[in-house]
Amino acid sequence: MHPPTTPFAPTAPAAHPLASDLENMQHALAQARLGASEGGVPIGGALVDKEGKLLGVGRNKRVQEKSAILHGETDCLNNIGRLPASKYAGATIYTTLSPCTMCSGAVVLFGISRVVMGENSTFVGGEDFLKSRGVEVVNLDLVECKQLMKDFIDKYPEIWNEDIGEEDT
Amino acid sequence: MHPPTTPFAPTAPAAHPLASDLENMQHALAQARLGASEGGVPIGGALVDKEGKLLGVGRNKRVQEKSAILHGETDCLNNIGRLPASKYAGATIYTTLSPCTMCSGAVVLFGISRVVMGENSTFVGGEDFLKSRGVEVVNLDLVECKQLMKDFIDKYPEIWNEDIGEEDT
Ligand SMILES: [Ca+2]
Ligand SMILES: [Ca+2]
Ligand SMILES: [Zn+2]
Ligand SMILES: [Zn+2]
Repeated sequence: MHPPTTPFAPTAPAAHPLASDLENMQHALAQARLGASEGGVPIGGALVDKEGKLLGVGRNKRVQEKSAILHGETDCLNNIGRLPASKYAGATIYTTLSPCTMCSGAVVLFGISRVVMGENSTFVGGEDFLKSRGVEVVNLDLVECKQLMKDFIDKYPEIWNEDIGEEDT
Repeated sequence: MHPPTTPFAPTAPAAHPLASDLENMQHALAQARLGASEGGVPIGGALVDKEGKLLGVGRNKRVQEKSAILHGETDCLNNIGRLPASKYAGATIYTTLSPCTMCSGAVVLFGISRVVMGENSTFVGGEDFLKSRGVEVVNLDLVECKQLMKDFIDKYPEIWNEDIGEEDT
């Protein structure tokens, strides 16, 4: 498994995950599986507003669209399009993998209140930065998210390294 | 003028800017002007590699493409497409305005070595985060970049607030 690439402390698995978080993560996981079926990096995202309404979903499109910036979270935000600040406030973004520094920065920029991740064993992103800016961070530690990443990285280690800005080793 | 929205310390204007930085900023500035002519948020970006070769340019496309994530820097990185980590190392990203937390996070993710901004009087983004991660940050403090933003914000304050995740006041 690829070791975490940042010195940040990973968020511990949630002892008592909310049923609504486990449910909403399924939207992100479905996107990750769709990405896997396309030969892409299998990471998905979903944004749910403060009333619990699904605003949109997205997935990593490095392979599919040759994009360096469409991650699960940013593709989700892009698919949703323009929103006023009030729609992001109180919202939760679901991502199957710990959000990278770019996606964490997007969460802070738009004032999204919560980040719920599928796992952070494969990679640790900007979790500390999010917490330092008042964002709630939850780790569901789901085996199905880890397995998707393991299968992908075993097969395409060079694409994964490219996605996280690392040199092949 | 819109006040800086983060508590971060703005980078002081460079006392002795490099001629190459002033020259390369013209690529970003041309994009910002093109964005203004399209009715868009007038912020442009350009990526120049360690040999001084222009890799690509981009501009904020919130208005033009109804995109929440295409800023000058991210649109530039997206237009360039997939690159190995070695191409970002030593590269400089030029942006007409201080990079927001999302774009700063993208710079850190990909290991871009330098950020040169046109100004940070209008807005202060993730400059401190960049420096804390070893990125060189330069502020050219250019009046033409400030004027483009002033003209836009005077005309469309609500679009600018939306772009930086702020409520209209
Ligand atoms: Ca790197
Ligand atoms: Ca805000
Ligand atoms: Zn990301
Ligand atoms: Zn930005």
